[in-house]
Amino acid sequence: MTARARGARPGVRAPAPLPDPLAATCPAPRTETEHVLLGHGSGGQLSARLLAEVIVPALGPARPGGPPEDAAVLSVEGLGLAMTTDSFVVSPLFFPGGDIGTLAVHGTVNDLAMVGAMPLALSIAYVIEEGFAIGDLRRITGSVARAAQAAGVAVVTGDTKVVGRGSADGLFVTSTGIGRVLPGAGAVPGASRARPGDVVLLSGPIGQHGIAVLSVREGLGFEADIASDTRPLHRLVAAMLGRSPEVHVLRDPTRGGLASALNEIALASGVGIELEEARIPVPGPVEAACELLGLDPLHVANEGCLVAIVAPHAADDLLAAMRATPEGCGAVRIGEVIAARPGRVTLRTLVGSQRIVDMLVGEQLPRIC
Amino acid sequence: MTARARGARPGVRAPAPLPDPLAATCPAPRTETEHVLLGHGSGGQLSARLLAEVIVPALGPARPGGPPEDAAVLSVEGLGLAMTTDSFVVSPLFFPGGDIGTLAVHGTVNDLAMVGAMPLALSIAYVIEEGFAIGDLRRITGSVARAAQAAGVAVVTGDTKVVGRGSADGLFVTSTGIGRVLPGAGAVPGASRARPGDVVLLSGPIGQHGIAVLSVREGLGFEADIASDTRPLHRLVAAMLGRSPEVHVLRDPTRGGLASALNEIALASGVGIELEEARIPVPGPVEAACELLGLDPLHVANEGCLVAIVAPHAADDLLAAMRATPEGCGAVRIGEVIAARPGRVTLRTLVGSQRIVDMLVGEQLPRIC
Repeated sequence: MTARARGARPGVRAPAPLPDPLAATCPAPRTETEHVLLGHGSGGQLSARLLAEVIVPALGPARPGGPPEDAAVLSVEGLGLAMTTDSFVVSPLFFPGGDIGTLAVHGTVNDLAMVGAMPLALSIAYVIEEGFAIGDLRRITGSVARAAQAAGVAVVTGDTKVVGRGSADGLFVTSTGIGRVLPGAGAVPGASRARPGDVVLLSGPIGQHGIAVLSVREGLGFEADIASDTRPLHRLVAAMLGRSPEVHVLRDPTRGGLASALNEIALASGVGIELEEARIPVPGPVEAACELLGLDPLHVANEGCLVAIVAPHAADDLLAAMRATPEGCGAVRIGEVIAARPGRVTLRTLVGSQRIVDMLVGEQLPRIC
Repeated sequence: MTARARGARPGVRAPAPLPDPLAATCPAPRTETEHVLLGHGSGGQLSARLLAEVIVPALGPARPGGPPEDAAVLSVEGLGLAMTTDSFVVSPLFFPGGDIGTLAVHGTVNDLAMVGAMPLALSIAYVIEEGFAIGDLRRITGSVARAAQAAGVAVVTGDTKVVGRGSADGLFVTSTGIGRVLPGAGAVPGASRARPGDVVLLSGPIGQHGIAVLSVREGLGFEADIASDTRPLHRLVAAMLGRSPEVHVLRDPTRGGLASALNEIALASGVGIELEEARIPVPGPVEAACELLGLDPLHVANEGCLVAIVAPHAADDLLAAMRATPEGCGAVRIGEVIAARPGRVTLRTLVGSQRIVDMLVGEQLPRIC
């Protein structure tokens, strides 16, 4: 509740101007805390705040002055390398379309790809709860191996720790990847490089991963119709960068969904982003599940699609290059970058109205990846 | 109990030869299981078996045909890179001499150093239990930052996941490092390169890390006298490799202690290793604590010392180079590599007898790193 809502302020009589619906903010849930909340792991506003208030003050920004990216880029003796790490805590461990092992490989390969890097090597670290079935560990390790082989990268090192019963939930997997930045592909894509006039491309339908995991976890029964989209995207990125260097931003909209990814870009670039709801591909079963559960598909995690912000004159070429790959065969143009309303993402809805697409404050779907 | 011990076998009358005490094995505890045991994370025999039976069949060995090393070595366009990962689950998170943050940085820097590589970049991934104090997270992240700065390496990327209360125990940290193999330092040190006649060097006293953590965890009261030895060892390694390329093996004896590290080397190289108990530096308080608790200091984890197996003609030079560094000022010669009893580590005790130094089967001190 805001101060204004609590009562009239005596002495202030001039009629207030009509509020701009796009500038309004709703009262937000309380987010200040001395303890870590589930929402701090959401990929949304609380995550960003934890990063800004606890992590970055200690460790410094990954790129001084720059926004956090999915992967860091280093130059070692003139060689452009990328490095990224992710812990996976998905529950349940097995879901339609994959398991925690496939997710760990694809998530890391994709984070490298988002800075234009092809994977060179992966590491996998397990934290296992005592009593975990060896058979499940074998199955998940097999998934890691198959996913790595399919992506053309080797798992070169790893670690295994075991904690007592009740000190972890089954298995957590942390994967780290190093990659080689594609030489000659122009500047490394980055969240701060979106410019007014740029075009927003999406490689395929959204919402499948989050809904698939949620469905099997909560026993909702959608799992026959929806499988996770988890897949490696580096070949799609190579095809894009091979066609045009005018790819300004690449993001895989995982935790926090397409909404969080685009909000981060709008903030980092100081631009507005305008989407067309009619152009965003949401599979029927995902839409039905979201309606039933009160979720916004724009907030649901994906593990096999990417959003690209590209120069307008290269957009058609890049869309054609994306559509020529299996991962990008459903690629579409979903919106554009504007100068107005910097830091804001808006959506032109099916009925012609406009609404703000906000970043989630906390956690909509915990442990989805 | 063996079959022979259960009763006399009628019809077998020839007197058995006296058993060779160094060839004898005690009945081992049952280790076959369908579920993960705490001991699978010990760094001992069960860990090795999990690696050999579950992980390697799926992922393949890190170096085809070779033993597992602390870090993988890759060649990228002629550049020698190393990569290593470790999850840290130490309990408690804070202990005399350090915390989980310092440990994560030093453990990773040291694993790189053991293949002769200097750290280029680190990543840090947190899995946090809901309700964890933000103040503790700030303190640990500060430790990560200070340890990284002191080691001269940057934390370039990271990840934060949060799981519900009861789904993790406070905080787990996974750190991954990439390093540059020192150019011109000769062949990369490796566990299979020990040769009969080689000399075994140890950089300093053993047992402090494990006993420091155990003491504060169990409230044993040794913590006033014993602090963890956690420290980075890459500068010590650079000093050694700068003096002589004849460093055949380097290991930091963490989980499983000096005993496990040397057993791994003896097995991988197909040699015997003979130690002199009188030469192995065990601080008084560590010795007292081990006697009280029934622990063998050779099995207790270290985080700030290394064991080196070096060519005999270079041993004195290398010892001098080690002693000229702060990390190696207590370096000593503790034994030698022999052709007899391949795969076995033996100890000449203070009273002149010989005993086998075995690798632990399971877990002596869980969650020590």
